[in-house]
Amino acid sequence: MFDKITLIGIGLIGSSIARAVKLKDLAKTIAITTRKSETLEEARALGLGDIYTLDAAEAVAGADLVILCTPVGAYEEVMKQIGGALAPGAILSDVGSVKGFVLKVMKPYVAEGVHLIPGHPIAGTEHSGPSAGFADLFVGRWCILTPEKSADPVAVDRLTSFWGALGSNVECMDANHHDLTLAITSHVPHLIAYNIVGTVSDLEADTQSEVIKFSASGFRDFTRIAASDPIMWRDVFLTNRDAVLEMLGRFLEDLSRLQRAVRVGDGPAMQELFTRTRAIRRSIITAGQETAAPDFGRPHGTTGNAIVQPEDVTPFAVREHGGGEDA
Amino acid sequence: MFDKITLIGIGLIGSSIARAVKLKDLAKTIAITTRKSETLEEARALGLGDIYTLDAAEAVAGADLVILCTPVGAYEEVMKQIGGALAPGAILSDVGSVKGFVLKVMKPYVAEGVHLIPGHPIAGTEHSGPSAGFADLFVGRWCILTPEKSADPVAVDRLTSFWGALGSNVECMDANHHDLTLAITSHVPHLIAYNIVGTVSDLEADTQSEVIKFSASGFRDFTRIAASDPIMWRDVFLTNRDAVLEMLGRFLEDLSRLQRAVRVGDGPAMQELFTRTRAIRRSIITAGQETAAPDFGRPHGTTGNAIVQPEDVTPFAVREHGGGEDA
Repeated sequence: MFDKITLIGIGLIGSSIARAVKLKDLAKTIAITTRKSETLEEARALGLGDIYTLDAAEAVAGADLVILCTPVGAYEEVMKQIGGALAPGAILSDVGSVKGFVLKVMKPYVAEGVHLIPGHPIAGTEHSGPSAGFADLFVGRWCILTPEKSADPVAVDRLTSFWGALGSNVECMDANHHDLTLAITSHVPHLIAYNIVGTVSDLEADTQSEVIKFSASGFRDFTRIAASDPIMWRDVFLTNRDAVLEMLGRFLEDLSRLQRAVRVGDGPAMQELFTRTRAIRRSIITAGQETAAPDFGRPHGTTGNAIVQPEDVTPFAVREHGGGEDA
Repeated sequence: MFDKITLIGIGLIGSSIARAVKLKDLAKTIAITTRKSETLEEARALGLGDIYTLDAAEAVAGADLVILCTPVGAYEEVMKQIGGALAPGAILSDVGSVKGFVLKVMKPYVAEGVHLIPGHPIAGTEHSGPSAGFADLFVGRWCILTPEKSADPVAVDRLTSFWGALGSNVECMDANHHDLTLAITSHVPHLIAYNIVGTVSDLEADTQSEVIKFSASGFRDFTRIAASDPIMWRDVFLTNRDAVLEMLGRFLEDLSRLQRAVRVGDGPAMQELFTRTRAIRRSIITAGQETAAPDFGRPHGTTGNAIVQPEDVTPFAVREHGGGEDA
């Protein structure tokens, strides 16, 4: 499909693209470039590419597809290095979680004849780094492209086919529309998850260890999201501020109303909301974006991978099975 | 271990207890009683017990262990029915998510010689009803008991052994301490999840369908919690108001600070928080309360149960794999 694909940055997303491209034989050559030499060596040890270099300009030379896979805060520095080295006719894309900012920061460095088509695969896990990637990451997931109106339709089709070959469904939309949609589907949920986990990490040590013990009651779901890559997420909030603050404002208005319902004991209002929210999850499962298995299909007891018995988190007198000797 | 165990209510938790008791042969007889005859018939069809009756007083007669497994809002009504029918020496427990209220509402109906030991297994899924239960639900999970200081230690030990036999680790604590701890580990996370899913369900239809499509970017995690049983959760917020409002207050203070960091673009503050929160998840995994598998071990692409391709949620021009014919 391509002669040479260059991946700039090789974390969870970049390394997943590399693996999928190899598996599906979508390029003759994969070039990988990173800022840090340790990361490059990790990618080399994993056998993710064919060319490894710390020189981004060298990496993009002759490439017909170049994908930025770094946190968006690094894009300007990357563009300064590669802007003059991109081959005419090359497609230049990325995988960043914000798109308006990306378009603004990349465009000044893109020469005539290079096709800038920003992208955002809606896929990931809470793990990061080259070893966290896997070839199936994009299967059944959406990938959003945000080409400008003036973009070459042939280049857009090529990139669409590329993501299709990785297993994704592709949709084109305006960059600002993307940023507002992702603010509510992704950025505000991350902000809230980071916040509540932060609230817990501020608790006194003994309370905190109880929160960890009893986290299966709901809290632990939030910690997965709040374990996502800190630099990437810092950059998201630095570059999609307005949309995030708008959606956070709506969330806070609704939370004030719910807080009041709790305070005055308005049972019917709560029950109405809690019933309505179930329907949203059903829609997500029907849309193929979520597993219908209970608890995300997490292993439970002996039916899955047995969850180890806690041994190291026992700040209180604990009555063990059949015992009671400490109580 | 017991002659006759009576389960009052047979939803996710009650039916999981019934299955585990049968599997491990912990009682000669399991009696099941429900308010609605449909639920009772469902339990009978599933073969969860030995005695099925709509008469709660009849169900508890001669039982040496009685466990309330209904939403806590129903406890007073249940106690009015069973208070006079409990056998002397019986252990009376429950599985409710709040404990101060439960102690207060149950105690007046408990005759001398009956051992009231409220309990709370920290286990569950977002599914509800008799068919949602499974025997392994409690394995490796904590169960909190909140006996009063005057409680008979032998009875507490018996109930501790019972939960141990179901696979749980048991801890005793004060009811009010339980309620404050669970407010932050469970009740506030649920409130926040319900709230953000509610915010989404208030969006215009076209935006909402986009949120559903792109939910894999974070939002869908919240929907699992927000799909939990509405009546149960209404009752939690009606009966643990003060602790919930206290912890929600802390969450909101922290969120104001984070909102300001986003507004002023304070990258270092965000990065510091987002790094700190990762450690909490690691602690939960180390404590055996969470799987270390990425994405909760959700199926991804072809490596797990294939996630179906979305077909019914395409309000926009969608470029399919290799195509582009609609765009």
